Amino acid sequence: MSDIGPPSFGHAFITGGAGFIGSNLADRLLSLGVRVTVYDNLVTGFPEFLEEARQRPGFAFVKGDLLDEAALTAAMKGADFVFHLAANADVRFGTEHPRKDLEQNTIATYNVLEAMRANGVRRIAFSSTGSVYGEAPVIPTPEDAPFPIQTSLYGASKVAGEGLIAAYCEGFGFQGFIFRFVSILGERYTHGHIFDFYQKLLQDPTVLLVLGDGKQRKSYLYVQDCVDAILTAVEKAGDKVNLFNLGTNEYVQVNDSIDAITAHLGVTPTRAYTGGERGWIGDNPFIFLETRKIQSLGWKPKLTIRQGIIRTLEWLQANRWVYEKRQ
Amino acid sequence: MSDIGPPSFGHAFITGGAGFIGSNLADRLLSLGVRVTVYDNLVTGFPEFLEEARQRPGFAFVKGDLLDEAALTAAMKGADFVFHLAANADVRFGTEHPRKDLEQNTIATYNVLEAMRANGVRRIAFSSTGSVYGEAPVIPTPEDAPFPIQTSLYGASKVAGEGLIAAYCEGFGFQGFIFRFVSILGERYTHGHIFDFYQKLLQDPTVLLVLGDGKQRKSYLYVQDCVDAILTAVEKAGDKVNLFNLGTNEYVQVNDSIDAITAHLGVTPTRAYTGGERGWIGDNPFIFLETRKIQSLGWKPKLTIRQGIIRTLEWLQANRWVYEKRQ
Repeated sequence: MSDIGPPSFGHAFITGGAGFIGSNLADRLLSLGVRVTVYDNLVTGFPEFLEEARQRPGFAFVKGDLLDEAALTAAMKGADFVFHLAANADVRFGTEHPRKDLEQNTIATYNVLEAMRANGVRRIAFSSTGSVYGEAPVIPTPEDAPFPIQTSLYGASKVAGEGLIAAYCEGFGFQGFIFRFVSILGERYTHGHIFDFYQKLLQDPTVLLVLGDGKQRKSYLYVQDCVDAILTAVEKAGDKVNLFNLGTNEYVQVNDSIDAITAHLGVTPTRAYTGGERGWIGDNPFIFLETRKIQSLGWKPKLTIRQGIIRTLEWLQANRWVYEKRQ
Repeated sequence: MSDIGPPSFGHAFITGGAGFIGSNLADRLLSLGVRVTVYDNLVTGFPEFLEEARQRPGFAFVKGDLLDEAALTAAMKGADFVFHLAANADVRFGTEHPRKDLEQNTIATYNVLEAMRANGVRRIAFSSTGSVYGEAPVIPTPEDAPFPIQTSLYGASKVAGEGLIAAYCEGFGFQGFIFRFVSILGERYTHGHIFDFYQKLLQDPTVLLVLGDGKQRKSYLYVQDCVDAILTAVEKAGDKVNLFNLGTNEYVQVNDSIDAITAHLGVTPTRAYTGGERGWIGDNPFIFLETRKIQSLGWKPKLTIRQGIIRTLEWLQANRWVYEKRQ
């Protein structure tokens, strides 16, 4: 990060800025002297995550929903860069409420783009997902992998968002930065397998229910490394549409992850597997992204997956209040 | 077509069934003994296109909009196959009304899928487009071309529709048939360059305004060949998600197309070019799809592009009323 200089924008608008990645990004940008407006409906975000940000000059918080176009457009006034991180990130339960992905991801992204047009903002960074590759035939999966077939409503909604952003770049002279994330770990992580496993082990350290056969291979990235990568790309990539996979050079099995978690917690639960190579409908048994493109810009992750897992657990142990709030 | 036997479904529901491709499909299915319900808001469709269909037993027409979920769900009752052809097919003017593609293509497709769930219908064929490949680095472009970057709101909305359908196949046990069309020509064609050129030449046969440099290379397919291909795929392809490019083994320059049109009409206009290799923002200077996959099922087109152009012109000459109605 040290070599990229000060940000090329003065006032960032962060959707989902009270969430896990958004609040970490907000803190970082504020520390770099950028004004930050966070727009968040606080459905999955936490006001507590903005406590540091509130101490900084140049910070504003607007509670609002992305489906409220008027409020969104008003809140964006004066911004010169949009980080669109708000999403229904619940890849697992898409089939229980398919409308959620459509509204909160696809339609919300459209509303963000229209609010940008209305405000004359032309640069956008977007949190997409490695899930857009479906069950990729090429692993590690590069950005130009074969045109994928979607396997989840979440992935489909993110593909739709990517397409909208690219079309606005072509049609309205926008510049887009699209990041296909692996799962992100670290401080303020409140969603995903470590969150679930830790909660289960707090309730009963003798047994752990594991979805699937535990052999699913997944990739993870530490949130500060993720923020580094986003800011590196935004300052160094100059195409109209800039697509980057974000991940590490490694993957772990769910079982490896459980090993790290149980060792750290000092528990030895019996593992009960639901079986099958997929944990749920649309689960991808092997996610591993090729990250040479972002690394070619000089970025590399500082933490290994295992270090990221431990960092996450330490944060959850020190912040058990998130489990109460998350009901 | 002769070798595929009777359709595997008894009652087809066709969205956009009063349109160009939809009404030709309706006629074909009725002639094969299939019951057909056409659902169309008649915004771009023509009731006149259903005159033959209305003479047949087993035909029903419901005037309705895809954004009216209740009407859509009610109309679909009893169907066992959905052909989702309704769309805003206006690739050129997307930037004038970006909401149209979102609503009429993406949200409409979601509504169709939900209406299918409500009615227990699990098979869907979808008219996508070669535009989803953006400016493809591989030509002729195969179905598994590199993950494309969208260049039009229309393409983006179709990618979103494809993704939704694939996710419903995975999540809800649907079977999907996704067709990426080149431009379709033939009887009831009411939209596109031949329509525009013929209209201009009727008004003034001495001069023809051409968008771009006239060297854009495009592919076309005759509508009856398109219907053949759709029915062949639906009966012969057995995957969960079946993706097919539909086109011919050739392409023509816009200038070649103008040669064919002016020769047929016996006019020799001066050509005035707006210039540039793209006719409009998001125009793709070279569209040519690899169609080996659909041909491997035994389908091949009966008409060449030039024959399709003449067939189209003949139909327009005999049906100049569509220009009046199209105001």
